[in-house]
Amino acid sequence: MIERGLLIVLSGPSGVGKGTVRKALFEQEDIKLQYSISATTRKPREGEVDGVDYFFKPREEFERMIENKKLLEWAEYVGNYYGTPVDYVEQTLSEGKDVFLEIEVQGALQVKEAFPEGLFIFLAPPSLSELKSRIVNRGTETEDLINNRMRVAKEEIELMDAYDYVVENDKVENACARIRAIVTAEHCRRDRISARYKRMLEVE
Amino acid sequence: MIERGLLIVLSGPSGVGKGTVRKALFEQEDIKLQYSISATTRKPREGEVDGVDYFFKPREEFERMIENKKLLEWAEYVGNYYGTPVDYVEQTLSEGKDVFLEIEVQGALQVKEAFPEGLFIFLAPPSLSELKSRIVNRGTETEDLINNRMRVAKEEIELMDAYDYVVENDKVENACARIRAIVTAEHCRRDRISARYKRMLEVE
Repeated sequence: MIERGLLIVLSGPSGVGKGTVRKALFEQEDIKLQYSISATTRKPREGEVDGVDYFFKPREEFERMIENKKLLEWAEYVGNYYGTPVDYVEQTLSEGKDVFLEIEVQGALQVKEAFPEGLFIFLAPPSLSELKSRIVNRGTETEDLINNRMRVAKEEIELMDAYDYVVENDKVENACARIRAIVTAEHCRRDRISARYKRMLEVE
Repeated sequence: MIERGLLIVLSGPSGVGKGTVRKALFEQEDIKLQYSISATTRKPREGEVDGVDYFFKPREEFERMIENKKLLEWAEYVGNYYGTPVDYVEQTLSEGKDVFLEIEVQGALQVKEAFPEGLFIFLAPPSLSELKSRIVNRGTETEDLINNRMRVAKEEIELMDAYDYVVENDKVENACARIRAIVTAEHCRRDRISARYKRMLEVE
């Protein structure tokens, strides 16, 4: 019998470095996570493959998926829909693979509602001043926008209580090591595996 | 403010390799666990230092500690008492150090009663037949004793539900890596650290 995989949701305030951590994690050779493939209504770009980069869907079909609750979360962004298809996630978990989803805080809260047994990891800045300097160092935003982002970040940190774990992103490699440790530890949780051992006692 | 340390209790059936795993863990250079020092009424052997190898106690004092609930667990073995002093554990935890205790199943259940907020890790054999061959390979026991040990081991595996985690001891290095991952993950648990982040939001 295959042990069902875990759904791991990495989230955190904008600017904290979610994308960087996710990228570093998937560059590690021995990583065994399956990156969650999103559905979208936007057109494929050159070289993008359906079912690999995205599941490309006509707008009508996406809206039917929303209606039929076939998305763990979804959002509209610059006129296109993006979302996480339930069926794909369920199928992958039932193959015993851990699915990894990196997502904004609002999306993570949607996933939590649809899939409370997921593993919710909040990526946190070492401090607010550090977060501010990361946002400022992108160099793309005006002071007003920066202040607005900081206000949103504070609100998002207040939402930390919905998460199972908080990983400090002091250094990308430390954050990756902590996330991997959390996944390993969760697979050792007694409530997940004691049934397997009890079966062992019965058959031997 | 120092984050309080964790009490980590490693236990499991006799023959599963608790001592071997503990030894390998403490041979790792970057390990940051504090091995729990036991109190005992047995006489110090040559080279043993009070407060390092054991806390050596007169019998009367040990019995007073039992009465005053100053031991997380205790047992009598070949005419001597052995036990884990509460005060030493509390002091070490309050210094922010994680305390590691390797102990028989019955002792672990005593600790659980006195200190339910501990982290209880059950070291499990890959299979019952593997456990049996480990016990047989010690080469010191008669068939009756071996069968008796297997009976006890099965009873102990049934007690797994009192633990937080189950670590399979397929290979010592794998078991060590899993234990370290569990300790790292537990330090990232949101309920342990969200208060720290909320303070951060207030002061900055």
